[in-house]
Amino acid sequence: MTDIPISRRSLIAGAAGALGAHALQQQLARLQGPGGSIAVPPDPTKVPGAPTSVLGERAPFERPRRVPLGGNQGVSLSPLQDLYGIVTPADLHFERHHAGVPAIDPQRYKLLIHGMVERPTVFDLQALRRFPAVSALHFVECSGNGAESYRSIRPDLSPQLIDGLTSTSEWTGVPLATLFREVGVKPGATWFLAEGEDAAVMARSIPIEKGWDDAFVAYGQNGEPLRPEQGYPARLLLPGWEGNTNVKWLRRIEIADHPFMTREETAKYTDPLADGTARMFSFVMDPKSIITFPAYPVTLPGTGWWDITGIAWSGRGRITRVDVSTDGGSHWQPAELQLPVLPKCHTRFRYLWKWDGEESVLMSRAVDETGYVQPTLAQLRAARGLGTFYHFNHIRPWRVRRDGAVLFGLES
Amino acid sequence: MTDIPISRRSLIAGAAGALGAHALQQQLARLQGPGGSIAVPPDPTKVPGAPTSVLGERAPFERPRRVPLGGNQGVSLSPLQDLYGIVTPADLHFERHHAGVPAIDPQRYKLLIHGMVERPTVFDLQALRRFPAVSALHFVECSGNGAESYRSIRPDLSPQLIDGLTSTSEWTGVPLATLFREVGVKPGATWFLAEGEDAAVMARSIPIEKGWDDAFVAYGQNGEPLRPEQGYPARLLLPGWEGNTNVKWLRRIEIADHPFMTREETAKYTDPLADGTARMFSFVMDPKSIITFPAYPVTLPGTGWWDITGIAWSGRGRITRVDVSTDGGSHWQPAELQLPVLPKCHTRFRYLWKWDGEESVLMSRAVDETGYVQPTLAQLRAARGLGTFYHFNHIRPWRVRRDGAVLFGLES
Repeated sequence: MTDIPISRRSLIAGAAGALGAHALQQQLARLQGPGGSIAVPPDPTKVPGAPTSVLGERAPFERPRRVPLGGNQGVSLSPLQDLYGIVTPADLHFERHHAGVPAIDPQRYKLLIHGMVERPTVFDLQALRRFPAVSALHFVECSGNGAESYRSIRPDLSPQLIDGLTSTSEWTGVPLATLFREVGVKPGATWFLAEGEDAAVMARSIPIEKGWDDAFVAYGQNGEPLRPEQGYPARLLLPGWEGNTNVKWLRRIEIADHPFMTREETAKYTDPLADGTARMFSFVMDPKSIITFPAYPVTLPGTGWWDITGIAWSGRGRITRVDVSTDGGSHWQPAELQLPVLPKCHTRFRYLWKWDGEESVLMSRAVDETGYVQPTLAQLRAARGLGTFYHFNHIRPWRVRRDGAVLFGLES
Repeated sequence: MTDIPISRRSLIAGAAGALGAHALQQQLARLQGPGGSIAVPPDPTKVPGAPTSVLGERAPFERPRRVPLGGNQGVSLSPLQDLYGIVTPADLHFERHHAGVPAIDPQRYKLLIHGMVERPTVFDLQALRRFPAVSALHFVECSGNGAESYRSIRPDLSPQLIDGLTSTSEWTGVPLATLFREVGVKPGATWFLAEGEDAAVMARSIPIEKGWDDAFVAYGQNGEPLRPEQGYPARLLLPGWEGNTNVKWLRRIEIADHPFMTREETAKYTDPLADGTARMFSFVMDPKSIITFPAYPVTLPGTGWWDITGIAWSGRGRITRVDVSTDGGSHWQPAELQLPVLPKCHTRFRYLWKWDGEESVLMSRAVDETGYVQPTLAQLRAARGLGTFYHFNHIRPWRVRRDGAVLFGLES
């Protein structure tokens, strides 16, 4: 290195501990913790590096983690605040299962399609993979995502704890329309049942139109076979529809002229409304967004320019705009959308903000190509009441205190 | 499951052992091998599944592997024939390093930018991450990729062995133009040196225009921090330019008005031409494509419809067309391009082919938005001669024998 005086940027010292503060604190704890320090050479150019490997591993300083909800509830949340871009690494994709992750031998895997069809057929994995495939980047989101921010608002909620039940992958599979043509779906068919091979025998009724539209039976995720907790070896993928309808470990599709009224669409996955009625079959995930930086547990170390960033998504199509407010919703400015902006997929947004040191409330508001605008908490509560357990797509506010601490929610 | 007679599709039996035959044979060997069989319940719906986990793991049946070249040559190849879509999982991204993978403490990481600048500056990782970021899906490809298919043609080459030195990730980082403005690059600057912190102190000279254009200093890969073998904690990313210029473990950028004539651009990474001269600074990766199915070591079990698929990419921009020939180049038909088609990124193509059982030669030919057409082996050899070690973007042919065996190259 050239031996010249270097003027270190003054903001660097200030920024230390700010970006990814939580992650870096965790790293520091590990470095100094009972596990011992991670050995690195003082000058990496003076020692030979590690050889190639058949499978890579993360740097020992990086320990991203899903957060399982207490006990074995079949829920683990993706670390949104630690993620860049839009792709979720497969081993950090959120989990939601109703009776654990089943172990299925891919050579014994079978998918039966029957009911109102000309040719009831069993497809094995080889057969599914022989058909012309499609690949597409789509989010999958649990319909209960965001519940804490609606029902149990606390200042110490992180993006992971609020919205960690959404993830984006590049899914690959065979269009359900191809399989429908193969088995000869009969005229008059209006619904189909999708049933999983887990111990819950998870089952949902799906309108047949979705099957003819953009649904597919997915066997690939981010370039490789599905992960076990995502439905290995094959799952239903209904782009933009609530996660539980994307039935994992898919073993049976029954074509019919009626919905099947399964436990998962009667006792669960319905939305009680403020007027005492309830809505069923609320499949589509409405537009939503969340700022993932700055967000709890980050503390901004100083004033000046900060790059507000987050993700927005809509089950109805493409995100067309994300507005950001830094004054609690009085004024809004459009954020920059990172290309590519894909339908029914996470979209990364950014907004450069100069913080003056005063208490500020940061909000993001997504708009999609249908014109749907993400509602406020008050608007959503007026429409749904307090009894609902699903589809919480209201605006998520972050309060930046004068000391730089960032807390969830509007109140002190 | 409903108790009805099921007519199994006749093609299924025929297809068994065909799609991903190699992978499935490997799986079978593992299932029956000395490691013992993988236990799965006879009926997964009758036993509770596995609980949630903080980090997911692949199904035990799936063992994708990079292939390291013999000895510790600093090369491992990505399993192209086993991958779907366009995203390469981070732990399967190819490797190329000249003195091993260095271990670098992210809290001690520093990037110096100096030379023809107003404010020589050291940036730590926190500082890099504070700037407004960009994320983009781009391929990175070693300039030596494809060498075997040019210099050592053998029928038993697989897509992995031919072209496994290209991978696509969603990269995140800070635009180099932002850093250039921050340090105040002086008028008259025409080149910069990028230097790595590995034991090879890998260094390349880059025209300053690329820095102002779409270059960035990347710290994120597929949503998470870079993997160690991809330059952790930060690397240069020059979209579309040969891999070695995307300097990993980036520690220094020196701005100048001349190229630095490093060892890596004089003794190496130049292209001897047929006329006895050589070309230097051949940065851009020209359009290329490869069929990844059917390809060696697959054997097609029967005639009928087969979905030819592969990837195409160009360092010059977007792929606009991929033509497929099934008769050795006499006739060409356009393949279907999977959306999204992104600039300087792998593009998945597909072509549905009805095999009549006769010997056939499959070829793909990529065209990009500049109009560049992927050349034949004869055309490339006429231009470059036999002495070159880099930039092998000629058409890759696969020969399908009457017995269904698929072999690389034109000759018997």
